[in-house]
Amino acid sequence: MKEVVAGVDIGGTNTVSGLVDESGKVLIESNLKTTDFPEIGTYIKALAGLINEMLSTDRSYKLAGIGIGAPNGNYYKGTIELATNLIWKGIIPFADMLRKEIEVPVLMTNDANAAAMGEMIFGGAKEMKDFIVLTLGTGLGSGIVVNGQMVYGSTGFAGELGHSIIVSGGRDCGCGRKGCLETYASATGVVKTVLYLLSEKREDSILRKIPPAELSSKKVAEAAGKGDRLALEAMDYTARKLALGIVNAVVFSSPEAVFLFGGLARAGDMLFNPVRKYVDEFIQPVFKGTVKILPSGVSETNAAVLGAAALIWNEKAKSG
Amino acid sequence: MKEVVAGVDIGGTNTVSGLVDESGKVLIESNLKTTDFPEIGTYIKALAGLINEMLSTDRSYKLAGIGIGAPNGNYYKGTIELATNLIWKGIIPFADMLRKEIEVPVLMTNDANAAAMGEMIFGGAKEMKDFIVLTLGTGLGSGIVVNGQMVYGSTGFAGELGHSIIVSGGRDCGCGRKGCLETYASATGVVKTVLYLLSEKREDSILRKIPPAELSSKKVAEAAGKGDRLALEAMDYTARKLALGIVNAVVFSSPEAVFLFGGLARAGDMLFNPVRKYVDEFIQPVFKGTVKILPSGVSETNAAVLGAAALIWNEKAKSG
Repeated sequence: MKEVVAGVDIGGTNTVSGLVDESGKVLIESNLKTTDFPEIGTYIKALAGLINEMLSTDRSYKLAGIGIGAPNGNYYKGTIELATNLIWKGIIPFADMLRKEIEVPVLMTNDANAAAMGEMIFGGAKEMKDFIVLTLGTGLGSGIVVNGQMVYGSTGFAGELGHSIIVSGGRDCGCGRKGCLETYASATGVVKTVLYLLSEKREDSILRKIPPAELSSKKVAEAAGKGDRLALEAMDYTARKLALGIVNAVVFSSPEAVFLFGGLARAGDMLFNPVRKYVDEFIQPVFKGTVKILPSGVSETNAAVLGAAALIWNEKAKSG
Repeated sequence: MKEVVAGVDIGGTNTVSGLVDESGKVLIESNLKTTDFPEIGTYIKALAGLINEMLSTDRSYKLAGIGIGAPNGNYYKGTIELATNLIWKGIIPFADMLRKEIEVPVLMTNDANAAAMGEMIFGGAKEMKDFIVLTLGTGLGSGIVVNGQMVYGSTGFAGELGHSIIVSGGRDCGCGRKGCLETYASATGVVKTVLYLLSEKREDSILRKIPPAELSSKKVAEAAGKGDRLALEAMDYTARKLALGIVNAVVFSSPEAVFLFGGLARAGDMLFNPVRKYVDEFIQPVFKGTVKILPSGVSETNAAVLGAAALIWNEKAKSG
């Protein structure tokens, strides 16, 4: 028998699932269109069917558990709560429902926590007890590990660094407040910064030729790569704000490393170099030189599935 | 035999020590003038003598360990490192030195972490696994507990919320940077705010009659208590900044409670009411109503000694 874990990444549009072995190898992967299932009951049955189908491809597979990453996934309760990006509304007892279909341990958390778990079990944080993963996508998600344990807090929703306020009265945030880190340091944040700089500066730029609705962090990074000064300035501005968010996280938990992950992190040196420079400049002296700013050690293709599966492998490592 | 722990609070001027039993009762207390011992070796011998003297007052006492709270005390290494408020310079292997005089477990941490440990073992956080203690004195110290464990981070210096930057380019901070929380939300911060308001406003105020060098958070709170509008505004301004620091800590670790402690917290409702109001206003919606803002449950007279002693009682509780 070969023990495997099902890792499931639930996104607003697609659900990606796979079977993952103890070494972090994704043995088989299979997808589902989340939006095809407006009714949660039918979705759960379809997901269970998908997992059973993957298991049936090799008779030696033995399912040790199912790990799930989902927007607003609550680790303590196994629920998805008030997720604005999902079609299912209210509070969904997801883990309980799935366990009725497949009787194995089911663990759930949000996407960023799953990414951090993946980093700890399979990625660059294997030897670390204190680190933070920032996922720079549409928003800024974070997974925080302290003393070798994921930080869930009293509510199960801890680790929302994207919503630390870094500019009082700053940019409008989707959470209803202003000046949250993710309005500056995210794929959408960098686009907002470009629009701001276009309004302020007289400089010519490749980016003036792209309709605002079509701007993306990728296009900004590309323009910066070509030496476009305004694009470079936007990357620098983004890095400053991200560095401010990072040094404020450092005084909290003094992590050994902060991993940057997701769309905006693909800009590579263009982002990492100024982030490292500003972290070094802004950091409280006592922490100088103690924090590494690193790219994720998990391949991006499988990261979400690996991270979700890591939830279960982590529990097994603790109990075994 | 009656097991006791020695709790030692090392301050720049005075050292307070006491023997504490398992219930949190301070059985005997004894002091030392820190500044009388410019040489660390003689200080250690004097402290050991003091502890032995207290132990000799009751033959049934059996010393289980010594817990120490000190500025820049490092839990991992048992060192005091580069403490600007102490007469001993450089890195002092304090725990090792003391253990040579008295052969018992010696644990050390900084003052704010000791306060949090006291809150957890003897105070208002007995039933809590996630909480934060903020000590509002000359600066703003913090002790953070996550999953029932003190957060020391990879360096041992985690929990420096007083140095989270809440105003980019804001007030000068003793750490060499600008805009740190403690420049606004501390006993000295509120005095700075009064000076700022005196410069901005035309209003009359009791505080205009006090030389700036004699202003204190106590005098500001007293004036506010008498209805002095400028003093009230200073308390309100302080509460706003403190609330911003608190809601940014909440997105990190989602604590069940934040305890306010120390000089400025003595202002009572004058501070707690606006802090609660602004926390409620500024907090990320998902955390609304989940965080209590509380006064410390440890009597201030013995808090430092109790907190230091709690370091040892906590270890004993874990291992026993």
